[in-house]
Amino acid sequence: MALGRLNDSNPTRHGLGPAAIPGVYAAQPRGPLKAREALADFLGSRDMRGSQGGGDLESRGGSRRAVDPERLYLLSSTSQAYSWLFKLLCDADDIVLVPKPGYPLIESIARLECVRTREYQLGFDGSWFIDAAALKTLLNGPDGPRIRALVLINPNNPTGSYIKPQERGAVVALCRAHDVALIADEVFFDYALEPFAGNARLAGENGVVTFALDGFSKMLAAPHAKVGWIEVSGPKPDVDEALRRLDVIADDYLPMSDIIAERIPELLAAAPAQTERVGSRVQGNLAALHAMLSRDPDGLVSVLRAEGGWNVLLRLPAVLDENDVVLAMIRDHRLSGQPGYFFDMTSNGYLALSLLPEPEEFTRNVRAVLDTVAGLLD
Amino acid sequence: MALGRLNDSNPTRHGLGPAAIPGVYAAQPRGPLKAREALADFLGSRDMRGSQGGGDLESRGGSRRAVDPERLYLLSSTSQAYSWLFKLLCDADDIVLVPKPGYPLIESIARLECVRTREYQLGFDGSWFIDAAALKTLLNGPDGPRIRALVLINPNNPTGSYIKPQERGAVVALCRAHDVALIADEVFFDYALEPFAGNARLAGENGVVTFALDGFSKMLAAPHAKVGWIEVSGPKPDVDEALRRLDVIADDYLPMSDIIAERIPELLAAAPAQTERVGSRVQGNLAALHAMLSRDPDGLVSVLRAEGGWNVLLRLPAVLDENDVVLAMIRDHRLSGQPGYFFDMTSNGYLALSLLPEPEEFTRNVRAVLDTVAGLLD
Repeated sequence: MALGRLNDSNPTRHGLGPAAIPGVYAAQPRGPLKAREALADFLGSRDMRGSQGGGDLESRGGSRRAVDPERLYLLSSTSQAYSWLFKLLCDADDIVLVPKPGYPLIESIARLECVRTREYQLGFDGSWFIDAAALKTLLNGPDGPRIRALVLINPNNPTGSYIKPQERGAVVALCRAHDVALIADEVFFDYALEPFAGNARLAGENGVVTFALDGFSKMLAAPHAKVGWIEVSGPKPDVDEALRRLDVIADDYLPMSDIIAERIPELLAAAPAQTERVGSRVQGNLAALHAMLSRDPDGLVSVLRAEGGWNVLLRLPAVLDENDVVLAMIRDHRLSGQPGYFFDMTSNGYLALSLLPEPEEFTRNVRAVLDTVAGLLD
Repeated sequence: MALGRLNDSNPTRHGLGPAAIPGVYAAQPRGPLKAREALADFLGSRDMRGSQGGGDLESRGGSRRAVDPERLYLLSSTSQAYSWLFKLLCDADDIVLVPKPGYPLIESIARLECVRTREYQLGFDGSWFIDAAALKTLLNGPDGPRIRALVLINPNNPTGSYIKPQERGAVVALCRAHDVALIADEVFFDYALEPFAGNARLAGENGVVTFALDGFSKMLAAPHAKVGWIEVSGPKPDVDEALRRLDVIADDYLPMSDIIAERIPELLAAAPAQTERVGSRVQGNLAALHAMLSRDPDGLVSVLRAEGGWNVLLRLPAVLDENDVVLAMIRDHRLSGQPGYFFDMTSNGYLALSLLPEPEEFTRNVRAVLDTVAGLLD
């Protein structure tokens, strides 16, 4: 028999909860168990369905992955997940490695946790790659002992590059050797565009303690749902320790509302169709982009191979300043944009282009870029 | 005409959101405007209604308070509010003053933000009071320059004490003089039990930059809703600066789900009845407690004056160790409890008692304490 509590402060256990939110609240650091069970079930079967772009969704093989609901943490967003993981892994002034090019939000979140970021460079020679030797140098360098985590975005934003199988092996071995945790942000994983073979989620990686992030924002095209999660995997002693400590952090915030949690099973049921719908849109727009660029008589703009995600990087003539292009687009087309330096591209001449718009708007956007570039070179 | 975005990553703006969560998501750091407007309206009229325990709710006078929705931040909980405010106000190792006795959660949250807490002592001489002179000594002491904020819990947990009008003046003046922000946690404000005259919310205080915290957890007896908010007030230049910086933090997390936000007006409409319902319960139980203690032939247990909140502090014979009492209660009555030292009471012999249980269970709980104490003294 469970103990009663002389100092219980939960009104829903005493018949006092509002009729509008029925049920008895049970504070669970990892989020309501029923929602986690539904999510674990979904995640386990997702990899069997597969959806790495192209190929019949039903025909892909692969076995069901066992996902333990006790290794899942439900929260509001991947931003919150980063925040918790930085708290978990870092003391003030500790270091997290983040990819460059990359999305600047992670650095901002790190700063708010008093954590420093160091960039590891992604190389590009027709496809993006992680330079394992450069990573090793960082880990063995003077800052090495303060490096607590490595962030992998799979696929990365804005480069769209997935972690390749051989990179994965090298990165996992390096992290294990240096006692560095992996944070794998895989929110765009299901949106493959022109992938290389052999992509796989890092979620469930057992070689090193791994925190895989995902959520409804991309999978369900529902940034307004505010549902994200962390999946913890790795060597069992490391996982147990991580869960124990992460529980303490999660227990301080308990962010998951029962109002949302009770809708998670229904929303998960809608996710595959949503992923497919958005996937079709971005694939269709990418095909349209290729067609437009190949028909463009000037041939001044090209597109980097987009392995996955919701946007591509356009390559502009390097003689044009990215800022000039964006300013001209605002002036002439009422269109703002994010130039490559926003993502720490190492050279000038890039512009991020979203593949989400309705085809007509997308075509207009591409046309605006082509016209602007041609106009500036006149 | 608004600018289009070449790199828009919001699928709901392109007809791709799920049918289950209709609408177009607009990322707003302070939370969806409609929900903030409804909340501002509610907060403005709440003080007119008044509900400081006792008295006809309708008959209380007072004028409507003007609450600006642009000075409100919607988030998941007061825990998250503390977390954001510590980020806003403190660098690593800066100091926040917290009341003692107090609830240990705040110290835990502060640590997760690399922020230190220093306790300011509440005195007790029949009622609890803030020692302004001791506070001044802290602010003028060696740690003074690192003190960035003062947390006031109004009413405090577990002491139940409201900030008295004369204390408020002294604290505001001290904070202003030392450039220290006020964080006023007023989640229990509406639950007055045996208040002194003149209590008032700190929300809306204009003498110093003030962040007032509140939420549905207590007001609506809905800890499972996960709706809290910050109201910013103070001298206008300070408020403007605070809003500008808090927007940056909020924009990194954007915790408020549209699924919840759209229900906020409906939940606010249910709040007054819920507050009254829970208020009746705790007042009824407190009356029952007084009756039981006055009838108790042993007279070994008394109750400290409970100005407000959901629990009271029982005073036990000081010859008994608090831990022994709790252990005996677990053994003999299957009831766990939180002894005074959990809240940093300065002397032995206190036990927190929730006033929330149904009357029958509450009576049983009090009986268990009385029997346990009598048994240990036999």
